[in-house]
Amino acid sequence: MGKGGMSQGGTGEDEVEENMAAWLLAVKTLKIQPFHLPPLRPHDVRVQMKAVGICGSDVHYYKTLRCGHFVIREPMVIGHECAGIIAEVGAEVKNLVPGDRVALEPGISCWKCNLCKEGCYNLCREMKFSGSAPFHGSLANEVVHPAKLCFKLPENVSLEEGAMCEPLSVGVHACRRANIGPEANVLIMGAGTIGLVTMMAARAFGATRIIIVDVDDFRLSFAKDLGADDVVKVSNDIQDVEQDVAQIQKAMKTDVDVSFDCVGFNKTMSTALSATRPGGKVCLVGMGHKEITVPLTLAAAREVDIIGVFRYKNTWPVCLEFIQSGKIDVKALITHRFGFSQKEVEEAFETSARGGNAIKVMFSL
Amino acid sequence: MGKGGMSQGGTGEDEVEENMAAWLLAVKTLKIQPFHLPPLRPHDVRVQMKAVGICGSDVHYYKTLRCGHFVIREPMVIGHECAGIIAEVGAEVKNLVPGDRVALEPGISCWKCNLCKEGCYNLCREMKFSGSAPFHGSLANEVVHPAKLCFKLPENVSLEEGAMCEPLSVGVHACRRANIGPEANVLIMGAGTIGLVTMMAARAFGATRIIIVDVDDFRLSFAKDLGADDVVKVSNDIQDVEQDVAQIQKAMKTDVDVSFDCVGFNKTMSTALSATRPGGKVCLVGMGHKEITVPLTLAAAREVDIIGVFRYKNTWPVCLEFIQSGKIDVKALITHRFGFSQKEVEEAFETSARGGNAIKVMFSL
Amino acid sequence: MGKGGMSQGGTGEDEVEENMAAWLLAVKTLKIQPFHLPPLRPHDVRVQMKAVGICGSDVHYYKTLRCGHFVIREPMVIGHECAGIIAEVGAEVKNLVPGDRVALEPGISCWKCNLCKEGCYNLCREMKFSGSAPFHGSLANEVVHPAKLCFKLPENVSLEEGAMCEPLSVGVHACRRANIGPEANVLIMGAGTIGLVTMMAARAFGATRIIIVDVDDFRLSFAKDLGADDVVKVSNDIQDVEQDVAQIQKAMKTDVDVSFDCVGFNKTMSTALSATRPGGKVCLVGMGHKEITVPLTLAAAREVDIIGVFRYKNTWPVCLEFIQSGKIDVKALITHRFGFSQKEVEEAFETSARGGNAIKVMFSL
Amino acid sequence: MGKGGMSQGGTGEDEVEENMAAWLLAVKTLKIQPFHLPPLRPHDVRVQMKAVGICGSDVHYYKTLRCGHFVIREPMVIGHECAGIIAEVGAEVKNLVPGDRVALEPGISCWKCNLCKEGCYNLCREMKFSGSAPFHGSLANEVVHPAKLCFKLPENVSLEEGAMCEPLSVGVHACRRANIGPEANVLIMGAGTIGLVTMMAARAFGATRIIIVDVDDFRLSFAKDLGADDVVKVSNDIQDVEQDVAQIQKAMKTDVDVSFDCVGFNKTMSTALSATRPGGKVCLVGMGHKEITVPLTLAAAREVDIIGVFRYKNTWPVCLEFIQSGKIDVKALITHRFGFSQKEVEEAFETSARGGNAIKVMFSL
Repeated sequence: MGKGGMSQGGTGEDEVEENMAAWLLAVKTLKIQPFHLPPLRPHDVRVQMKAVGICGSDVHYYKTLRCGHFVIREPMVIGHECAGIIAEVGAEVKNLVPGDRVALEPGISCWKCNLCKEGCYNLCREMKFSGSAPFHGSLANEVVHPAKLCFKLPENVSLEEGAMCEPLSVGVHACRRANIGPEANVLIMGAGTIGLVTMMAARAFGATRIIIVDVDDFRLSFAKDLGADDVVKVSNDIQDVEQDVAQIQKAMKTDVDVSFDCVGFNKTMSTALSATRPGGKVCLVGMGHKEITVPLTLAAAREVDIIGVFRYKNTWPVCLEFIQSGKIDVKALITHRFGFSQKEVEEAFETSARGGNAIKVMFSL
Repeated sequence: MGKGGMSQGGTGEDEVEENMAAWLLAVKTLKIQPFHLPPLRPHDVRVQMKAVGICGSDVHYYKTLRCGHFVIREPMVIGHECAGIIAEVGAEVKNLVPGDRVALEPGISCWKCNLCKEGCYNLCREMKFSGSAPFHGSLANEVVHPAKLCFKLPENVSLEEGAMCEPLSVGVHACRRANIGPEANVLIMGAGTIGLVTMMAARAFGATRIIIVDVDDFRLSFAKDLGADDVVKVSNDIQDVEQDVAQIQKAMKTDVDVSFDCVGFNKTMSTALSATRPGGKVCLVGMGHKEITVPLTLAAAREVDIIGVFRYKNTWPVCLEFIQSGKIDVKALITHRFGFSQKEVEEAFETSARGGNAIKVMFSL
Repeated sequence: MGKGGMSQGGTGEDEVEENMAAWLLAVKTLKIQPFHLPPLRPHDVRVQMKAVGICGSDVHYYKTLRCGHFVIREPMVIGHECAGIIAEVGAEVKNLVPGDRVALEPGISCWKCNLCKEGCYNLCREMKFSGSAPFHGSLANEVVHPAKLCFKLPENVSLEEGAMCEPLSVGVHACRRANIGPEANVLIMGAGTIGLVTMMAARAFGATRIIIVDVDDFRLSFAKDLGADDVVKVSNDIQDVEQDVAQIQKAMKTDVDVSFDCVGFNKTMSTALSATRPGGKVCLVGMGHKEITVPLTLAAAREVDIIGVFRYKNTWPVCLEFIQSGKIDVKALITHRFGFSQKEVEEAFETSARGGNAIKVMFSL
Repeated sequence: MGKGGMSQGGTGEDEVEENMAAWLLAVKTLKIQPFHLPPLRPHDVRVQMKAVGICGSDVHYYKTLRCGHFVIREPMVIGHECAGIIAEVGAEVKNLVPGDRVALEPGISCWKCNLCKEGCYNLCREMKFSGSAPFHGSLANEVVHPAKLCFKLPENVSLEEGAMCEPLSVGVHACRRANIGPEANVLIMGAGTIGLVTMMAARAFGATRIIIVDVDDFRLSFAKDLGADDVVKVSNDIQDVEQDVAQIQKAMKTDVDVSFDCVGFNKTMSTALSATRPGGKVCLVGMGHKEITVPLTLAAAREVDIIGVFRYKNTWPVCLEFIQSGKIDVKALITHRFGFSQKEVEEAFETSARGGNAIKVMFSL
């Protein structure tokens, strides 16, 4: 059994038969089974889950029991894009009461190390991240979570929208790291979920012109509908970098100030580096190939910096502001919805795994 | 003939027989020949050269007529690390008078484009850089140069030291871009001239602990004498990255905050990326291989940013301050000295090209 | 006669009878008189003025022959918010041709000092600023100006809108210095022209919520129509600071991250400092009283920084982008329009000097 | 009785007769009395105090029962500059064991609010700061403190030096906020303890040239001995600002890039603002007068920013590095030493309160 992160296997006797969760038992084997919650500590809350989305990393675990260098070695509750309703609060919790609708930030860092103290808690080496091995996730009726990582939803923000704060946070963090504002013309490589949330965030940060690039017509058309200023269809062939760059620059009409590589392949990264203006930035958001071969020297000689992006920090408040003010419509990304039954859980993961026209798959609990 | 940059071929009749320069005519073929200077414009000065150093890029041109994407297509006067004495000033020059000893910043940017106006003139697309094809350099009796790129030497700074401001500027600019200060533990890959000036600059910027890495015992010992806190000898074998990183971390005793790759190979860059702490920076200073294969995704997942460095900007004043205050002893880098005769010019370039124990080769004119 | 700045009194004989300008001869004494232009240098252009706005500083000169520490000692052509049509280009001008419609950036800096080289040309000690004593301005049929300070108008941007780039630039520069973005809740003290352009710029930079404060109902209502999220009417009484702050915080509903004091009085600055959250910024844009008495220690103890703002730099391109994209409607600020006759010039300055419902007064030439 | 902060009044019966502390009971009335410690929580440690310094704020409390807006309403244990030896560790403490020598960071922030999460914990509104009303301090035989705020001393750093990390931290934080490095010429107003630690920190951060200003000959001479490049004696008369600035600029020989006002009076702040170059910074460190009258508009018109400084954050590790490497010699600041008896405590506070040649007064326990 996974170690306790967001929610731990415990001995809360009276809940044994009630709290059910989706456990990943083996490759492509998810089972809804009882999930014992730990006792509530003073700064924790118990949350009744209402909306949980499927992330690309969930699908990786589902298909391979791995994601990056994380490996599932024991059955683990999956899921980490979530929102719900407060069922119980710990003795010292002051900002929340039962009944409050909240979105959950899944990563629990140590708050003791230098990185946490300096405000870079997303890089904490002791991070316990819900739904990332070996820590249990949130596709469950109920979870226990620190109150300070639960953010009250404004009245006009739905629970589904609350769950979307998690993927949107990746885009927001990337835009912050790349310092996006109204003086940035932005290129986005890849129109998958990460590319799309980055595009939406870049728009909300005031980016002047946004061009998005993909190999897939459906995704490009989806991106165009969501507000890309222009789209460029490219091939998978590394030989085409030069001509792709020419197409991108034509579509941009001016310099590319910042590129986001939301794919992480040799070709996407090479294209991003070549297309970006001297003194610009390339932000690597997508975790594709482990080793990447790129024209790094030429990029350095134009002082094009490569900015790494890992998850997010302090993003829920601004995500909620973007959603409640209408600056970002995260609902537009939800293409499929499922209930929380054995059959639907299986179907939902298969749908997400197939890709195709599935962008965001969402559970209602 | 090269186009006019720092000093242009012109029609100054009365100087025809006097001003001589070292022309690169073909691969490994340098000839001292007359060099006609252009007329002095109002904001220019004429400088009698006194000290000129040989840079790695000069040696590239000497051996191949190329350096990066710059190609010599017509005979070109070589050299750009230089200092001299003002011989004549243009009508509107106010900050200099004949007799002043000055160090010359070689790059003449346009001061009209956005990059220049925003203070990034080193990235100007219209840059005319002395001694970089097709612009004539400064290994000559006299050159003409904009007054605003000539910096008066403090009394206790020699002309040779003045010429050393150019290579030192690369280290200073790298330290600025990487934000080096007393809270940075620094790793330097490569103990060649660039590695050494970067080390010296990092020390002057207050770096806590500096570890330098190379494959060559002489260079490591030279670096140790110049003030490295520790040195690590490594192999050229890419298989050894992991064990090199372990050695480096042992020598550092704490986290590596910033790495400077002063080589630019797959192995040096991979080592730098792996050795640097989450949230740290790797500064790519050395222009080695064009394409580089690196574990970029893992680096991005630790938010280790890659910072490009191209030449320098606004560095002469601080270099002169470092030299005059004794914070940096650039003389220690000068291993060989030559006069300005046909024979000595040839010998000097051969010495520099051989490498070995030649760090900086300097001409006296 | 003023020294040559944007346009110099000169000896261009054939233009003697043609080029007319508005000369400030004495307090409240403006006369349209001939204005000799200097010969065109290689990098200059001659511009036929088409739209010139009246700035608060023009009114100061008009009323007192002074503005800050600048004093008019000889007759001077007034005006510096302007746009026109290129009539002639210097020999080395490449980016412009006769007939081009351009907005003019009035400040001509030296491009030789450290501040210019480092990208802070607005702080250049050798600045020749058109229309600021002793340099002639642009309320004239024609002026001569450096080509690099003339910005081509997009097709859908009018000449009047081009002239508005100058006041808008103040707001843009203030927002840049204060790092405004979608995570900033903004307070603006003063709903005069500077307050309004700052508000418009803050909106374009993505500010979340903007509250504007003034003593005047007309201005507050004008600001509300232009897009303030809420307005707060205050008194001039320094005793009311605490209650004003309470009102502001109620209107903001959340913390004030950044305040812009567009007035510069004891009360406005004290209010701004007190209303801003720990770690926030107060940007001093308005040049009101010379000495200001403020609770500086308390502000420092909350690390509320005070950011100075002087004119602008590199703002024309982004201003034109904001106007052409419709993000900012500068036309809404133009409340009065006049032609370029002796009578209308007098009337226009009187209108502007009276204040009241005059926000921006614009000349058509 | 003060509320529990660093150490709380509690019911630890068996310690009643052992743990004694210096309680401030009334103006100028300090009594050594029993101090009950709270039970040790899992992340806390119990520390046997060995060295405690007297801070200016302690003296304020001693003389007036107030410091800034903090007021002592019940007897309170005083002191917060301290170091000691770990006596006991809580169940979950991993980085410390009994016998470890540690320096204590006194401020306990909430780690739940935005400011804490974003790395600005010094600005936390829920801060419990030891020895600042109403939280008990550390002039006691033993205190209880969070383990993560206890920093192990390197072998060659004494307990007294450990206690000096607290005042030094103020200088370090000020230098960080002002971005001090080898390109900063620094002016320091005031040669009291804060001025001196700021000077030492600025030196360690690589400041080029440091000029220190005071009204007192002894302090100036002390500062000179500690490494000021030059000192300037001034008067208290506000009329002398202009001539003081002239003296300062003469002593500096070049531009003042950053000024630290370590006093906080009208005159010191006016002098600092006037002496600092366009685009420079004035850092307000000293908490002198509540309201300050300054030429703010002129400063803003030169974009001289005013940076607030409140306590410090994440400074202990770098302070210990500075001390252990010998970059900073904090011992030089300790002018007086006392033991921990009723008589010596009284004498020590009187000595510190008298000022004169007392810089840092230190207790050995």
